[in-house]
Amino acid sequence: MGQTWDSAIKEQLLRVDELMNDSIASGQPELTEICGHILASGGKRMRPGICILAFMASGGEDPEKVIKMATAFELIHSATLIHDDINDDSELRRGTLTAHRKYTVPKAIIAGDYLFVQGFRLGGSMDETVINSIADACNAMAEGEFIQSDHERKAGTPIEVYRRIIEGKTARPIEAGARVGSYLAGGDSFMIEAMGGYGLNIGLAFQIADDILDVVGDLSATGKIPGIDIYEGKPTLPIIMAMEDEKVGSRVSEIFAKKVKTDSDVQEALELIRSTDVVERCKTFAREYAQEAKDFLEGVPDSEYRDSLLILADYVVERNL
Amino acid sequence: MGQTWDSAIKEQLLRVDELMNDSIASGQPELTEICGHILASGGKRMRPGICILAFMASGGEDPEKVIKMATAFELIHSATLIHDDINDDSELRRGTLTAHRKYTVPKAIIAGDYLFVQGFRLGGSMDETVINSIADACNAMAEGEFIQSDHERKAGTPIEVYRRIIEGKTARPIEAGARVGSYLAGGDSFMIEAMGGYGLNIGLAFQIADDILDVVGDLSATGKIPGIDIYEGKPTLPIIMAMEDEKVGSRVSEIFAKKVKTDSDVQEALELIRSTDVVERCKTFAREYAQEAKDFLEGVPDSEYRDSLLILADYVVERNL
Repeated sequence: MGQTWDSAIKEQLLRVDELMNDSIASGQPELTEICGHILASGGKRMRPGICILAFMASGGEDPEKVIKMATAFELIHSATLIHDDINDDSELRRGTLTAHRKYTVPKAIIAGDYLFVQGFRLGGSMDETVINSIADACNAMAEGEFIQSDHERKAGTPIEVYRRIIEGKTARPIEAGARVGSYLAGGDSFMIEAMGGYGLNIGLAFQIADDILDVVGDLSATGKIPGIDIYEGKPTLPIIMAMEDEKVGSRVSEIFAKKVKTDSDVQEALELIRSTDVVERCKTFAREYAQEAKDFLEGVPDSEYRDSLLILADYVVERNL
Repeated sequence: MGQTWDSAIKEQLLRVDELMNDSIASGQPELTEICGHILASGGKRMRPGICILAFMASGGEDPEKVIKMATAFELIHSATLIHDDINDDSELRRGTLTAHRKYTVPKAIIAGDYLFVQGFRLGGSMDETVINSIADACNAMAEGEFIQSDHERKAGTPIEVYRRIIEGKTARPIEAGARVGSYLAGGDSFMIEAMGGYGLNIGLAFQIADDILDVVGDLSATGKIPGIDIYEGKPTLPIIMAMEDEKVGSRVSEIFAKKVKTDSDVQEALELIRSTDVVERCKTFAREYAQEAKDFLEGVPDSEYRDSLLILADYVVERNL
């Protein structure tokens, strides 16, 4: 088997999982269980992976130095997943019931807060530069979520607003992880900028790919019911583009703006979007950001970690697309 | 006018308010507005006040050293208020509409997260001992809320469980603030223990007094509709004691355990509780904890700050009781 994006850091990612499990131990077994539930449905550990790869690719030697930080980012990310699922009242995440549906909203809110705190506890042993990076990333997330919430079901949402939403909620946090990884390795300002630029762009590519999957994916591949973004009125790139389409635009907009949507509304919108070239054009966008991410690695010395980052850039856009 | 608990630190509390306002500035005006909304309804700044007084009473000289920390505690406390109000679906806090009722649940969840992060950002400039204290206090809060949520509408909840709930959600965070204040002043272990013991016990006294006010208070004095704890099925000390009362116990328990309660159910339970000696017995408990808090200050050198802490101990139990 060829190299996958995470094969060079498998061991470190296991350490992240270990440290996450240690971090969620609590006097309340059910609290630990809810946190474990979200960690288990948390996916491929791309965020801590990028943080660790940025550290290693920047010449970091002792990965123990970055593991805490990578774990902190993943814990905070998991906290936001729980809270996002409440805000969207999502039913499924990676094919399993979301935390608030399984354990009630109050318990899920508390568990999210708890994960936030564990993330900051781990990050808190770092210097002020690092803390501020984490806090800035969290602020960007909050602001991105806020803009998104302000544009729910708004048919005329411009692509520029979408760009700001995904930059805040996805790309800035990944950028912060990459920057901090490089910083902890003692990377110079060129290296930190390179890793930051990589992180920002791969974050944008990743989110666009994710939003495409909501249109073309299916439950068995993504663990999510397709069309959720239409159902929830989230202005994603494919939806915005479809709403601007000459042929299907007005009907897609009409469905998108509806406060109460039936399953057949959502199905109709999905089919209309798929009947256009919107998905292909979105893929082009995602690939361009992935290319931009790779370009940022140009002056970075060759290593298996740099290779991993390059592989990851292709992977995030091509998975299931 | 005589000395009030906060007259010796008025200036420092104004600095806390300033720093809180600086901390909530965001690129999203409405996010800032929601945070400002909760800060404005946040009350008397008792938590940062205790942190500052513990610092000063421990011989701290430059209050600037403690202001950041005191502010961090208040920001984190405010974050939990927003999330608690969502969890209880409370309508009013200090007479004004709660954040989620005014701005929607998703925006309130995000605003709470945002306040958490700003608190940790301020705390993050401190050393690891301090970060761990804050994180431990947050964990205690989460665990307290969790136990509370597990005992909602449970008529047989023992007083011991109530003790654990209020210790976690109220007393441990106040204890942490007092300890950290003393620690930042360079207090020795006697001093830190004294302040910690004061904080823990005043926290218990404060919460019992608060729970009494839900039975005997009125909207104009407390800004909350009385009987909320009965309505929400929260096992507070007066409610638990009333449920154990020979005469009214079985009826109060019956109402308490009801999933859907009418206003007249709640009124009936309130009147039944008031007809017993439960409120007086609860006051005795609160006064005992307040006395215990004062006893912890015995070996602490005389100062206007120590006096302030003594005044506060009386104030938290006697206000409106």
